[in-house]
Amino acid sequence: MSNEMTDEEIAAAIQGYWHWYGIATFMRCPLKPDLSDTDVGLIGFPYSGGNGIERMQYLGPRAVRDRAVAYRRSHRVFQVNPFSLLRISDLGDVPMPNILNPDLTARDAEAFYRRVDEHGIIPISIGGDHSVTTPILRAIAGPKSRRGGPIGMIHFDSHPDAHGAALGTLHHAGSPFRVGFDEGLIDPARTVQVGFHGSMAALTADDWSKEHFTVINLEQMFERGVDWVASEIRRVVGDGPTYFSFDLDVLDLAYAPAVADPEVNGMTTRELFSIMNKLRGIDIVGADIVCFCPPLDNPGQITALTISELMVQFLSHIADYRQNSAAR
Amino acid sequence: MSNEMTDEEIAAAIQGYWHWYGIATFMRCPLKPDLSDTDVGLIGFPYSGGNGIERMQYLGPRAVRDRAVAYRRSHRVFQVNPFSLLRISDLGDVPMPNILNPDLTARDAEAFYRRVDEHGIIPISIGGDHSVTTPILRAIAGPKSRRGGPIGMIHFDSHPDAHGAALGTLHHAGSPFRVGFDEGLIDPARTVQVGFHGSMAALTADDWSKEHFTVINLEQMFERGVDWVASEIRRVVGDGPTYFSFDLDVLDLAYAPAVADPEVNGMTTRELFSIMNKLRGIDIVGADIVCFCPPLDNPGQITALTISELMVQFLSHIADYRQNSAAR
Amino acid sequence: MSNEMTDEEIAAAIQGYWHWYGIATFMRCPLKPDLSDTDVGLIGFPYSGGNGIERMQYLGPRAVRDRAVAYRRSHRVFQVNPFSLLRISDLGDVPMPNILNPDLTARDAEAFYRRVDEHGIIPISIGGDHSVTTPILRAIAGPKSRRGGPIGMIHFDSHPDAHGAALGTLHHAGSPFRVGFDEGLIDPARTVQVGFHGSMAALTADDWSKEHFTVINLEQMFERGVDWVASEIRRVVGDGPTYFSFDLDVLDLAYAPAVADPEVNGMTTRELFSIMNKLRGIDIVGADIVCFCPPLDNPGQITALTISELMVQFLSHIADYRQNSAAR
Amino acid sequence: MSNEMTDEEIAAAIQGYWHWYGIATFMRCPLKPDLSDTDVGLIGFPYSGGNGIERMQYLGPRAVRDRAVAYRRSHRVFQVNPFSLLRISDLGDVPMPNILNPDLTARDAEAFYRRVDEHGIIPISIGGDHSVTTPILRAIAGPKSRRGGPIGMIHFDSHPDAHGAALGTLHHAGSPFRVGFDEGLIDPARTVQVGFHGSMAALTADDWSKEHFTVINLEQMFERGVDWVASEIRRVVGDGPTYFSFDLDVLDLAYAPAVADPEVNGMTTRELFSIMNKLRGIDIVGADIVCFCPPLDNPGQITALTISELMVQFLSHIADYRQNSAAR
Amino acid sequence: MSNEMTDEEIAAAIQGYWHWYGIATFMRCPLKPDLSDTDVGLIGFPYSGGNGIERMQYLGPRAVRDRAVAYRRSHRVFQVNPFSLLRISDLGDVPMPNILNPDLTARDAEAFYRRVDEHGIIPISIGGDHSVTTPILRAIAGPKSRRGGPIGMIHFDSHPDAHGAALGTLHHAGSPFRVGFDEGLIDPARTVQVGFHGSMAALTADDWSKEHFTVINLEQMFERGVDWVASEIRRVVGDGPTYFSFDLDVLDLAYAPAVADPEVNGMTTRELFSIMNKLRGIDIVGADIVCFCPPLDNPGQITALTISELMVQFLSHIADYRQNSAAR
Amino acid sequence: MSNEMTDEEIAAAIQGYWHWYGIATFMRCPLKPDLSDTDVGLIGFPYSGGNGIERMQYLGPRAVRDRAVAYRRSHRVFQVNPFSLLRISDLGDVPMPNILNPDLTARDAEAFYRRVDEHGIIPISIGGDHSVTTPILRAIAGPKSRRGGPIGMIHFDSHPDAHGAALGTLHHAGSPFRVGFDEGLIDPARTVQVGFHGSMAALTADDWSKEHFTVINLEQMFERGVDWVASEIRRVVGDGPTYFSFDLDVLDLAYAPAVADPEVNGMTTRELFSIMNKLRGIDIVGADIVCFCPPLDNPGQITALTISELMVQFLSHIADYRQNSAAR
Repeated sequence: MSNEMTDEEIAAAIQGYWHWYGIATFMRCPLKPDLSDTDVGLIGFPYSGGNGIERMQYLGPRAVRDRAVAYRRSHRVFQVNPFSLLRISDLGDVPMPNILNPDLTARDAEAFYRRVDEHGIIPISIGGDHSVTTPILRAIAGPKSRRGGPIGMIHFDSHPDAHGAALGTLHHAGSPFRVGFDEGLIDPARTVQVGFHGSMAALTADDWSKEHFTVINLEQMFERGVDWVASEIRRVVGDGPTYFSFDLDVLDLAYAPAVADPEVNGMTTRELFSIMNKLRGIDIVGADIVCFCPPLDNPGQITALTISELMVQFLSHIADYRQNSAAR
Repeated sequence: MSNEMTDEEIAAAIQGYWHWYGIATFMRCPLKPDLSDTDVGLIGFPYSGGNGIERMQYLGPRAVRDRAVAYRRSHRVFQVNPFSLLRISDLGDVPMPNILNPDLTARDAEAFYRRVDEHGIIPISIGGDHSVTTPILRAIAGPKSRRGGPIGMIHFDSHPDAHGAALGTLHHAGSPFRVGFDEGLIDPARTVQVGFHGSMAALTADDWSKEHFTVINLEQMFERGVDWVASEIRRVVGDGPTYFSFDLDVLDLAYAPAVADPEVNGMTTRELFSIMNKLRGIDIVGADIVCFCPPLDNPGQITALTISELMVQFLSHIADYRQNSAAR
Repeated sequence: MSNEMTDEEIAAAIQGYWHWYGIATFMRCPLKPDLSDTDVGLIGFPYSGGNGIERMQYLGPRAVRDRAVAYRRSHRVFQVNPFSLLRISDLGDVPMPNILNPDLTARDAEAFYRRVDEHGIIPISIGGDHSVTTPILRAIAGPKSRRGGPIGMIHFDSHPDAHGAALGTLHHAGSPFRVGFDEGLIDPARTVQVGFHGSMAALTADDWSKEHFTVINLEQMFERGVDWVASEIRRVVGDGPTYFSFDLDVLDLAYAPAVADPEVNGMTTRELFSIMNKLRGIDIVGADIVCFCPPLDNPGQITALTISELMVQFLSHIADYRQNSAAR
Repeated sequence: MSNEMTDEEIAAAIQGYWHWYGIATFMRCPLKPDLSDTDVGLIGFPYSGGNGIERMQYLGPRAVRDRAVAYRRSHRVFQVNPFSLLRISDLGDVPMPNILNPDLTARDAEAFYRRVDEHGIIPISIGGDHSVTTPILRAIAGPKSRRGGPIGMIHFDSHPDAHGAALGTLHHAGSPFRVGFDEGLIDPARTVQVGFHGSMAALTADDWSKEHFTVINLEQMFERGVDWVASEIRRVVGDGPTYFSFDLDVLDLAYAPAVADPEVNGMTTRELFSIMNKLRGIDIVGADIVCFCPPLDNPGQITALTISELMVQFLSHIADYRQNSAAR
Repeated sequence: MSNEMTDEEIAAAIQGYWHWYGIATFMRCPLKPDLSDTDVGLIGFPYSGGNGIERMQYLGPRAVRDRAVAYRRSHRVFQVNPFSLLRISDLGDVPMPNILNPDLTARDAEAFYRRVDEHGIIPISIGGDHSVTTPILRAIAGPKSRRGGPIGMIHFDSHPDAHGAALGTLHHAGSPFRVGFDEGLIDPARTVQVGFHGSMAALTADDWSKEHFTVINLEQMFERGVDWVASEIRRVVGDGPTYFSFDLDVLDLAYAPAVADPEVNGMTTRELFSIMNKLRGIDIVGADIVCFCPPLDNPGQITALTISELMVQFLSHIADYRQNSAAR
Repeated sequence: MSNEMTDEEIAAAIQGYWHWYGIATFMRCPLKPDLSDTDVGLIGFPYSGGNGIERMQYLGPRAVRDRAVAYRRSHRVFQVNPFSLLRISDLGDVPMPNILNPDLTARDAEAFYRRVDEHGIIPISIGGDHSVTTPILRAIAGPKSRRGGPIGMIHFDSHPDAHGAALGTLHHAGSPFRVGFDEGLIDPARTVQVGFHGSMAALTADDWSKEHFTVINLEQMFERGVDWVASEIRRVVGDGPTYFSFDLDVLDLAYAPAVADPEVNGMTTRELFSIMNKLRGIDIVGADIVCFCPPLDNPGQITALTISELMVQFLSHIADYRQNSAAR
């Protein structure tokens, strides 16, 4: 007896790849501006007012929706279809009526994410620059959040982003992990930063992170391999609720060229997805993918495709975790 | 007897077009960060924190320098070589230590331009979004400026940019001509706005301008022609000191595609330069060219080239005016 | 008393230009897949299976939505806001389950448009190649349509597209006006083709059109001007119901570079919109804009912007006509 | 005694790299529309009517010719110059008078390849989408072919392309290996599909292939390495005549970005060419390289270059095999 | 009785536009490296060693062939099909074995064009930079040419290109019209230079031309119109044999963006083709189109299309002239 | 006690990444056209007159300055800040008054580098095509140089570039290592060529190199690994003064797409920087990075970024070597 697909299934599968058809919501998810009937909310955060280096990240969510619309997919290794296991919605873009003012925007965004948190929705956000992480953390791990306290953090990045106020505001792209620490939003003992690499603006740039968090730079990964990286991450974050903040610049420019703060000689997608697969079973309570600058992408949109595949990963992790939790 | 150029002059002329050779300052002008020995200062203002629509204007000055480096030129119609008549310098870029904060940046920029004003230098600024005009006007026409009071204004644009505070700040790209009016920096009787066109976000969008300034929209230009436009501008601004603020979106996208807020069916460069030539004799005391978004330019860089040619125009006007003033 | 906009109106107007924010439907119209509550339906027809020359038109509707999302605008000359006068919806994309088969797709599309017709909706379609016009005409002017018979036709194009079967199908991009004639969908006495230009594949290429329809080529427009063109069009189509089929290749490549079948030395947008304005009062019962190939657009997206402005035109014409009809 | 090249040889070698000089035939091969004097025929198959996802593959052969014209090369590892060992011709493009009709085009193409087969020419085809493989197989392995029966198949791809009729035709890009099986054109025991990877449209998508063919997905290659992959392929296809169908999407987007149906995290060119080198001695009786979408290529044309190098591989394999066969 | 095209004619006409099909020779002309059976020879001259400003012109002929392959066309206004009236061939590219040495290359190219001249072929050359004109003139109007003496010259350009040796060689892009004068290849009384415009490297740059030739700059055209320009050109060159050297930079960058030495505010294609049409009856004995830099073209290839249409013009002029001469 | 950066240091570090701010000199180094106060001179050599294949290298230095301006960085592995240990200047571009004549330009460039040598400056040059190496070697290792004799050579390239005169000149991109050998500028016993790969124009192409130098091709690196490559290089060049000539085409096109003479399947940046790190302690007396063609770079400028990082490597090596030498 064959597992053969029917003609209708074949046509549907092929049409699922049509990235140019219909209204582009994230992964063809229903649009739920009222936050109803949703387990996981895909959210656009088209903001670039926090980055002094590159300013094109406001174009990110649209560009991701336009590609990810064809990524209503299942996870090949986990053998999981997140779209059948979870109610996944596109919640639209974060309202930013004061977009030119970084402090007001951080306040406005926090209010939006507080609503998301109150609805019990796991937010997966597509930036925007890295400053978007700050209001998200305040909303889901601050004193007024449902959880009420700090969470674990897996932070992939080529830079620590753990500095204080600069360039006229605390709410810049280089501050979220310092703010997370200072405001008690992330648990430093359960925080790991992965991927520092490239020549340095200052030799002391990573020192604060190394003192307060676990840091894995790429030179270490080159020497010890991805299995070691994955086990280190698991060791640090353990079983508790964990946020995953993914700055695309951790990837090599061959795989993610369209980033705000590029560094040469990064991680390959093979390494990334190998690590991701080995992190199966971690309890992800939120995630963001930041620093996508669409005008810098290759014509074939490799960065948008990598983001889309990473979104499938995050969703599959969450679906797999829930499925296994329910089974226990 | 022939006017023939010598071999050396020929080689020099050809090399003058080498846009890829040497350090790119505006028009190969000497770099004068100390503001010394300068009649006209070419200034980069790489700021896009004031525009909610498009954010790539911070890339403008570099892209203009890279092209304008080959535009150390003379004016074909006026038969004037501004570089032999004026001391023209590249003053570098406006310092912006608080670049993510629009209000602090307006303050920082005003301080820089006040120094320019104190040195008696005519500033020609390359933006940046249109919010850059506000601190410039405060510095050169505010109560503490050398002049001490309002100036005339020629404003080419497809939009009025005469609104109040919005998006979290007064210092946004849509406010400079309202601020200029409210703070007494521009003389409304000597202010003309040229070039409104395209479909409208709101039917009332231009009303405030029409009440307070002289407005020439492109439908009028299509009907009455460029001679009428030039004479209207001359009539409004008269002989007094006049600032020229040029938003590239007044031009048709065939001629200036790389703009922040594009409108279809604009002015041709032939019309623009025809009008410019007919404005000979106006006393230009400052100018800016704003809203250039280099990633949106055509591969042949038509927008950067149009800007370069417009800079030659501004410089030739100033040189011609001084030459004629001196002759009187 | 001033017409000044309030702060909220200003912010809203500026945000209206944010082409990168939110879910991209045509002009931020509500999505109505059930065709409810709609006077005018904006429809994507992402099909390129009818053109043997260029095949990228399937990318058109997405690219237009991504730009037109910021074109919820009013008409500057008519002083009409179509969005307040009409119920305008985005009806999504035409279903094409047999997309690789041109004859089946023509049948499938006709069925969709028949539903549109039955709901009394005026369809404005964004192609797609020019073969999309055939099923639309069959649905709204065929024997089973509400109207039940032929309509007038204004066809802007650089080619007649009035040939019979070729390349393996009748349903190709060069046939709709022959099919429209042969099947009695368009009234030849009320059909005008505007814009033939460029060198010719065959000297007889336009002969059939000239025998059966009124033809205005661009050489005539260059000589007699746009007023004559507009009055000719009005004379031909008169007061009856009229379809407007707009092939972007009628425009010069400086204004619409991203077309399937480019010809040099076309119409300018100034000429186009001047003619459009002079056609005020025509009864438009359907329209399409075809042959947009987004990968061929300039980085500044001039073609997508021209299309967006043209959509504002079509909507404003319809709103204006209804307003005036109601007033009578 | 030196192996030094003469001045003429040096100049010729350098000129051989001039990709912009002369008429672009594949690898500067003579054009033989009459199929005369040819051992291996390089054929363009500029067809994209079989792919519902992306439609730009019709531009492939021209873009490959424009780059491969500079690839009249020898194989560094095999130390073989195929151009001195084989009579290699450019046979032009497959005639497609019914290009808009997929079923008629499959028929027309089969007729062309039947002539190629009758002339005893090994065809190496440059697509075009993957539907081009179906008529080729019918012509060279169908009942009317010289061979008269099925051949072995090495199929590199990220997808199985083994589905039945869909989207209105059997002749679509996802069907050739099902058609090959159903019509007895390929020997399932001698068929290996290499390279499935990426998240999946449906978890059952590969099941039919796994039941009927040998399948090697990339997760297996990551674990077991390229030597294992090569030996598996050799084991499956053995010594018999073998067709090599290469869908570029098996490669990582860093190495082949310009593909119709991209998947993240694919094979590197180093892995590809390592496997290819290890397959020395296989009897290749035909090959195709499909799904190249030139507008999606990087500015440096990495995909076109990869294709050119792969063509050198195919030619060198055939030359090497013939040389060794003759020596036996 | 109808002039209707047959189905075969329709299909052929549509296929004639397939710019991506088959081997790209100029206008699908037969390739005649032996110069046989040819009235007009289309020649690629892919050389950029004569221009100090931009160096990408070597890519010109390939890019023109790739587009012009679809321009086997007839002239709409003249109602002439040059391909039925003339034997037109693609003669391939000029051999340049010493391409890095400008003086040797001038010698090598002259030898090639001498053969063309000896075969009685009218050469239409696609550059390459403007230095290519020098060896062509020596071959067809030098003392050893069939003609044996000077010819008339219509030179469209934004620069005079009439300077002496510079940058290490006489054979640079700025010298051909000085060399033509100095060596008696062009008749100064029958030489007209059309199109100088833009700001100037030196105010004396045009003086030599004005003293020796007839010069029409664009300011004059703006004032007096295209009819005057055409009649001036006719007056200067009269009935004698005339060469037409066309530097694309005379056109506005909206219409020909991909040029080596761009100037803002040039001629439109409407003006160009209007002038061309009015020059009907001039005896063109050779032509070149130079300074095309394909990497600077817009994605829609407007420059390549303009060149293709201009080639149709040149061919139609020659065909029309011969037809009319024969008729006399 | 924390190593925390102060607010000012943070802001300075962030601003250091602003690649679009200020005047673009290499790594914001002071411009020293008089060669004063300089240990290491960064020099632009914008020349493409020596390469017959691709001609866009003249655009290299400008494009590198525009990106490297943000690379005033420290070496992560060596923990060295070269900018605090060395006086590093931007010496501007090599004067080329005879740029169209390759032999005169070689002479002119040699004169410039002789001045650099006389000032005791280590030159790091950014090309330009590979012909730039010849005059540099003559100036710093010829009989009139300070050193007076041959130096060691580390040459990374996919081609030997060791041929004699061709294409009309000895001074072409394929000759520098033959000229270096023939004129006694490099010590063959201390010369290693690393990275030959890809299919070959002629099977004998590398033979001369293998006879005279040490050659490491990439097939060897794939088998033996980067540690072996590094140790081989160290073994060959030993402790003596060594020049490092880096042709970007040695890198895979995924990492350095914008090269003149691309070959598929090259070195990764991870391999490159791993080898570089292992070469610590070599005495680098000059370096060049050649064959960058900016128009072929990806939108994210990966090649320019790789070059910038490689410049940090060269500077850090020199700084580290001097520091260690001084310490001994």
